[in-house]
Amino acid sequence: MNIKSYLEKKRERVNRALAGYLDFSPETPPRLKEAIQYSLEAGGKRIRSILAMASCEACGGEEEKVLPVACALEMIHTFSLIHDDLPAMDNDDLRRGRPTNHKVFGDGMAVLAGDGLLAHAFWLLAKTGTPAEVMEAIAWGTGPSGMVGGQALDLQAEGKKLNIQDLERIHRLKTGRLIAASVTSGARMANAAPGQLEGLQKYGQAVGLAFQIADDILNVEGSPKETGKQKTGSDQKRSKAAYPGLLGLEPSRTKANRLVEEAIASLSIFDDRGDPLREIARFIVARSH
Amino acid sequence: MNIKSYLEKKRERVNRALAGYLDFSPETPPRLKEAIQYSLEAGGKRIRSILAMASCEACGGEEEKVLPVACALEMIHTFSLIHDDLPAMDNDDLRRGRPTNHKVFGDGMAVLAGDGLLAHAFWLLAKTGTPAEVMEAIAWGTGPSGMVGGQALDLQAEGKKLNIQDLERIHRLKTGRLIAASVTSGARMANAAPGQLEGLQKYGQAVGLAFQIADDILNVEGSPKETGKQKTGSDQKRSKAAYPGLLGLEPSRTKANRLVEEAIASLSIFDDRGDPLREIARFIVARSH
Repeated sequence: MNIKSYLEKKRERVNRALAGYLDFSPETPPRLKEAIQYSLEAGGKRIRSILAMASCEACGGEEEKVLPVACALEMIHTFSLIHDDLPAMDNDDLRRGRPTNHKVFGDGMAVLAGDGLLAHAFWLLAKTGTPAEVMEAIAWGTGPSGMVGGQALDLQAEGKKLNIQDLERIHRLKTGRLIAASVTSGARMANAAPGQLEGLQKYGQAVGLAFQIADDILNVEGSPKETGKQKTGSDQKRSKAAYPGLLGLEPSRTKANRLVEEAIASLSIFDDRGDPLREIARFIVARSH
Repeated sequence: MNIKSYLEKKRERVNRALAGYLDFSPETPPRLKEAIQYSLEAGGKRIRSILAMASCEACGGEEEKVLPVACALEMIHTFSLIHDDLPAMDNDDLRRGRPTNHKVFGDGMAVLAGDGLLAHAFWLLAKTGTPAEVMEAIAWGTGPSGMVGGQALDLQAEGKKLNIQDLERIHRLKTGRLIAASVTSGARMANAAPGQLEGLQKYGQAVGLAFQIADDILNVEGSPKETGKQKTGSDQKRSKAAYPGLLGLEPSRTKANRLVEEAIASLSIFDDRGDPLREIARFIVARSH
């Protein structure tokens, strides 16, 4: 299979669906809607959505059924980016090559755009009759025990010397939990068997961490064009801990590769419908080579 | 019935339940949990929770069943207070007589405490198997078409001259939608009949607006002890539009009283199990006399 064209096709599918799901009340202030659209339509990789779709299809489910879940995950991810970029957090001016939300709409509106996206994601899940266990997993992966908890750890860690265990704990919460929830949610939308779910859970955890390590490597090595950020090495400048700094560049690559192998190994019970998941795992790390 | 002791009993019930629902993962950073608890346990009136409980009981439902919904509503309300107080929004230093969340924990952690509460509210709703239509109504009343949308209007209105229609639109979204959702959610948890739901919808809308007008009056007239804010008249100081300033004090009171009568009239099909709702409507406005 051609992973690049697969990712591109899925990305377009998600983007079309996302635009259709922003059906707010006519009373919603246009400026708020604009702020939400600005970040949501900034053109990310849609990796969480695609993982949910690929996981659903690996378990024999149909794309149509998982699409609202895929879009809700992307709304939640975008909410987290808007808030992470705020001056009170990472204070970033650029994201995906464009000024960050608060730079365009102001800090207050950016807080609200994030809040609105988070609430709207759960509206979409409820509106489309998503099973309670799927909503529960997504909310858990998002909140104080997941992404928001990880961001809090990250905030507290700034300027401090971390060891590799501390760093892994941050990543596990901040990135890993929602990525793992994306994978298992897709599977649950296809009524996956317990054995399938178990394999996908392991896959999600390994891929989530691999993804973060690859991001850390890109942040050190990549061009601003690839990272979409102001300048590469910005994590180092703010003395944020990252894998290359703690482990070294080559050992970080080795670790990412090992995680990809782990992820693929945990898909052994899947036939060729699991191939997109296998290729996504490879692709995530290949970006950083 | 003694409305004050009714409210006190319900408030204690909600507070006990709330503490029990903050069961995050052991990996959740303690400081984030502390920030969440600080605001959640600051002792509000719990009016949204109590409306949901009273509405459920008016329709013959049991308190036990509506308790998770009541607590989720309170988490969502608290999230909105934390974010509204931020320097990028209303920039308030005091809330309920104590320093605001960001004054104690910093702006970044306050943003995350709010985010975490919002996500955790939906986790609680999903975890306890809340029907999709209830979650949908709560998410709609919270997001860009509800409370968050109203706060965005409020933010844009600062320093501008508003007319009474503008002000009512802000309040309808910012306070009205979630209060109305509280009332109807409680009814739905009791499997209310369509006629009951219709009456309660009208009740919720009228009470929501009455509540806001009463708050505006208190803000002009009340002592800092009653309002818990730094100084009374702070809305005026920041040239925020409010009912007393636009309509005058006495006409504002008249309007609030008329809304209470409307609210009570829409409960005509309810027997004495609707009395708490009637008394709550009266109590809300009596605060401001």
